[in-house]
Amino acid sequence: MSDDCVFCKIAAGMIPSVKVHEDEHVLVFMDIGPVTKGHSLVIPKAHHDPIINVPVSLLQKVIAVVQQVARAQLDGLGADGVNVTQANGEIAGQVIPHVHFHVIPRFKDDPHSWTCPQRKYDSDEEMGQYAARIKNAMKG
Amino acid sequence: MSDDCVFCKIAAGMIPSVKVHEDEHVLVFMDIGPVTKGHSLVIPKAHHDPIINVPVSLLQKVIAVVQQVARAQLDGLGADGVNVTQANGEIAGQVIPHVHFHVIPRFKDDPHSWTCPQRKYDSDEEMGQYAARIKNAMKG
Repeated sequence: MSDDCVFCKIAAGMIPSVKVHEDEHVLVFMDIGPVTKGHSLVIPKAHHDPIINVPVSLLQKVIAVVQQVARAQLDGLGADGVNVTQANGEIAGQVIPHVHFHVIPRFKDDPHSWTCPQRKYDSDEEMGQYAARIKNAMKG
Repeated sequence: MSDDCVFCKIAAGMIPSVKVHEDEHVLVFMDIGPVTKGHSLVIPKAHHDPIINVPVSLLQKVIAVVQQVARAQLDGLGADGVNVTQANGEIAGQVIPHVHFHVIPRFKDDPHSWTCPQRKYDSDEEMGQYAARIKNAMKG
């Protein structure tokens, strides 16, 4: 547990939350500033951040619960779709530095739309260079 | 394989892509309309959609690769952050109905920002009701 972490305190019950699911490793609770009503947060109880620092077996437990929450939002809320998002770093929009997945139910009449423009590479060569840099770092 | 699916065709090599990583179950390739340069897509090779229909063991393989790509974008591209997003349903912004994770490197000077307002419940009771409906559906 990190002493300064709001999500650690929620996991420990020191800060109240509206819980949806809890097991040994994973907690699901309601986002109090929801993108849409039903917006849930799925976190590992243990403090890890960002996603690259989560032990892979724990990350796999978390994504299994994300899937269950998505299913429950579709079935239980009658959602028409679901967004799953996870941000790492302030520049990415992350507010609480304890890894968390947002599971956001979407409804045909909901007020939300993402700003998500498709941008362009200067050239195919440039795209290839970016791919190579990621590829080489994956091998490293 | 779904005959009409662009991502199945990419996985089968019938449509060209710039690949970043490939293993038995998972493919990573470049998004040709990137939110930021380096934007990668991580897909299971097998056709499943939406996320609730992916066998959990396969989903866990996919998220492990998502983590590797995020690390490689931070290390190999010098990204300052990473967004991981996954959309289910047209209303959620999904274009290709074959489950895929976007892994989007973020840079301090990049042109992107998400529109992601925090909305409100009418009351604490309403939030509790949404939580209960999700919780009950998870048990079902």
